[in-house]
Amino acid sequence: MRLIVIGGDAAGMSAASQARKRRGPGELEILAFERGDFTSYSACGIPYWVGGMVDGPDSLIARDPAAFQQSGIDVRTGHEVTGIDLAARRVAVRTAEREFTEGFDELVYAAGAVPTRPPWAAGPVAGVFGVQTLGDGAAVQEWLSSVRVRSAVVIGAGYIGVEMAEALIWRDLKVTLVEQSPQPMSTVDPDMGALVAKSIENLGIELRTGVTVKALETEKDQIRAVVTDAGTIPADVVILGLGVRPNTALAEAAGIPLGVTGGLATDLRQRVTGPKGTVEGVWAAGDCTQVLNRVSGRQVHVPLGTHANKQGRVAGINLGGGYATFPGIVGTGITKICDLEVARTGLSSKEADAAGFRYVTATVESTNRAGYMPGAVPMTVKVIAEKDSGLLLGAQIVGRAEAAKRIDAFAVAVWNRMTVTEMTALDLGYAPPYAPVWDPVLIAARKADEAL
Amino acid sequence: MRLIVIGGDAAGMSAASQARKRRGPGELEILAFERGDFTSYSACGIPYWVGGMVDGPDSLIARDPAAFQQSGIDVRTGHEVTGIDLAARRVAVRTAEREFTEGFDELVYAAGAVPTRPPWAAGPVAGVFGVQTLGDGAAVQEWLSSVRVRSAVVIGAGYIGVEMAEALIWRDLKVTLVEQSPQPMSTVDPDMGALVAKSIENLGIELRTGVTVKALETEKDQIRAVVTDAGTIPADVVILGLGVRPNTALAEAAGIPLGVTGGLATDLRQRVTGPKGTVEGVWAAGDCTQVLNRVSGRQVHVPLGTHANKQGRVAGINLGGGYATFPGIVGTGITKICDLEVARTGLSSKEADAAGFRYVTATVESTNRAGYMPGAVPMTVKVIAEKDSGLLLGAQIVGRAEAAKRIDAFAVAVWNRMTVTEMTALDLGYAPPYAPVWDPVLIAARKADEAL
Repeated sequence: MRLIVIGGDAAGMSAASQARKRRGPGELEILAFERGDFTSYSACGIPYWVGGMVDGPDSLIARDPAAFQQSGIDVRTGHEVTGIDLAARRVAVRTAEREFTEGFDELVYAAGAVPTRPPWAAGPVAGVFGVQTLGDGAAVQEWLSSVRVRSAVVIGAGYIGVEMAEALIWRDLKVTLVEQSPQPMSTVDPDMGALVAKSIENLGIELRTGVTVKALETEKDQIRAVVTDAGTIPADVVILGLGVRPNTALAEAAGIPLGVTGGLATDLRQRVTGPKGTVEGVWAAGDCTQVLNRVSGRQVHVPLGTHANKQGRVAGINLGGGYATFPGIVGTGITKICDLEVARTGLSSKEADAAGFRYVTATVESTNRAGYMPGAVPMTVKVIAEKDSGLLLGAQIVGRAEAAKRIDAFAVAVWNRMTVTEMTALDLGYAPPYAPVWDPVLIAARKADEAL
Repeated sequence: MRLIVIGGDAAGMSAASQARKRRGPGELEILAFERGDFTSYSACGIPYWVGGMVDGPDSLIARDPAAFQQSGIDVRTGHEVTGIDLAARRVAVRTAEREFTEGFDELVYAAGAVPTRPPWAAGPVAGVFGVQTLGDGAAVQEWLSSVRVRSAVVIGAGYIGVEMAEALIWRDLKVTLVEQSPQPMSTVDPDMGALVAKSIENLGIELRTGVTVKALETEKDQIRAVVTDAGTIPADVVILGLGVRPNTALAEAAGIPLGVTGGLATDLRQRVTGPKGTVEGVWAAGDCTQVLNRVSGRQVHVPLGTHANKQGRVAGINLGGGYATFPGIVGTGITKICDLEVARTGLSSKEADAAGFRYVTATVESTNRAGYMPGAVPMTVKVIAEKDSGLLLGAQIVGRAEAAKRIDAFAVAVWNRMTVTEMTALDLGYAPPYAPVWDPVLIAARKADEAL
């Protein structure tokens, strides 16, 4: 039996590894095609590489093709799958040298995501980069070291945009961060976004919110400036942090149905499903799929390495004859901007509105440690709870230290459908170097309980 | 109506504050008696005060008597309650100057805990100290600054003993830590205790486990050495970290029934209960009470400020005419020894055995951050799960940074009776500065799932 995997990053290679663990090479042949040069890498690490905190690209690679080969997974980089023939059970593959087809019994579709590109960013321009792949990271690095770069513009102030803006500050550039919406990090509420905005500005980044990019200005095919509805910003390098969409082109062409978000829809075991049921022998995992948000009950597209790894693992266990399910997400996300930590889980106010919830919010100021301990710094925690029921719908944290990972307590509470009233009794870790006697998480739950 | 509170620390004053919040002075008179000099202080902060990291004692006081008086709570320090007459509804009180009685309608018993003292530590010896109260902390400070102290012996290697041993190292003393059981921190499993032992020794503390203290050697009523079954250890100062038991003497004398652990038993609303039902108008909270361990289903005595605060708050809300419950604990505890962080929740292997569980364990080595990030250091996570059902019974973490508070994810999972299988899907925060793409919590859950 032969398994073909399309995409050699987190989702695809996790699936391949788990399948291999359960079925030996005599039982299952595994062939993975990756169009780029790298396998199983941490795209999330690219900003730290560009910022000079981390050596790259090798350190960002969890497992290279040689290691996979050794464990009996035939992974081929520089191989782009160009077509899937479901009836004939084969894929068409192209390399720099040749084109050929390979047959499969089972297929894992893990093609990832493709960057969102507005019309003004449609064509390639020297000095304009996305940051999706290690190749992108290498290209940015080369540009920064070979061209005389003074001014950088980062377009889009989501996770990657904010992280790249910080990275470029570390490279001693003048950085402008342009965002169409009124706040950076629109995954958190406006009041929390305002704290993020202040921190971005304190870092020396020029933050321009509510600004729409209209065009890129070039000179000899090289970037020169970003033209916006609020003026032109000179730029020797432009980073695009405009988000991504599921890379489903091959699936669509093969007649594989898409879900409501435009991502591939799967069942709990990561088998691709459509209106007519499961697509026989086709699995999907990672950024090309949609996932269930367990709080809203809606399908969403949340491209994150952590989900991709979990989904890939689940697909691989099932392919290997085991049983595992991916029961969805609760919308957890964390990041840092310099020493500011930002975290969220569950639904933001906007998302709660969209899902139809009636809710109360409570925001508290506390500290990471007992107030009298050295290193005690402020932390803001916001909780969103359903009116009447008190069900925890979401939480957001902004703080200067030991803040972001506190979201995990909320994430597990959301997962288990706890009420904020029940949360006030939670037995969280207490010791003066790590928390006030009432942890900020508990204080926020208390305040939400009182607000009900 | 008059409420009398016995004990002016966390539990008692939380109760008083919550009751006051809900009932004005015209409706409810609140009188609190504290035999010591301080109210609402952080005893947990004493080691950091002794170690010189924190100024004391003022900074360790959350709220002083004057602040309580201002909010309409008549708290009297230096007032020791010496008797309770339940039938006559009054307490006998003694100060340095006089004795008197005061009547009550409602009583909150929050007398805390008293240190365990073996026969050899029965009488007071100059240079031998407990560390239960701020007064104890002040006495240690005075001794260290007024007497020529070179060698310190800390007896008992639980939380407070370990923390005090570290504090005394910061004071440039030669420190020996003596523990009767074979490992320090017997609240964690032996394999995790071994990691703690190594860290204690690396700190320059001489750790002597499996050693029983037989006597204190004095000269002119002043400490000179600690005599053990394995030799005599010179000591210019001795710290007793031998644990505490519920301070129930007054309650017993008044005929108030005790629970199976020797602590006061309460219902969910913190009303004292006995075999014949609720004791009318008597509430209890804090270190003098027993609490439900939600995992073992057993009553336990766990003297911790965080539980005391919660129980006091619950008692006060109910006293004030509101409704709140304290549904028990899951056994969470965290501490640090220099840069080693130690955490546990749920049941240890020994506790799981005692409760009658059959279980599997899984231990993993991971890192606090993505391996390629600066500051990535090792972390060991151990998970205990019920055989067959996969129910998470407990978890322990030892690490060098960003380790201890990771226990909260486990604590919330234990609280919600999750299985380790379900835990593998948890949506915990991921970003390279804060976690590997599989958080150590998830890796441990995966390994336990595989062990089932």
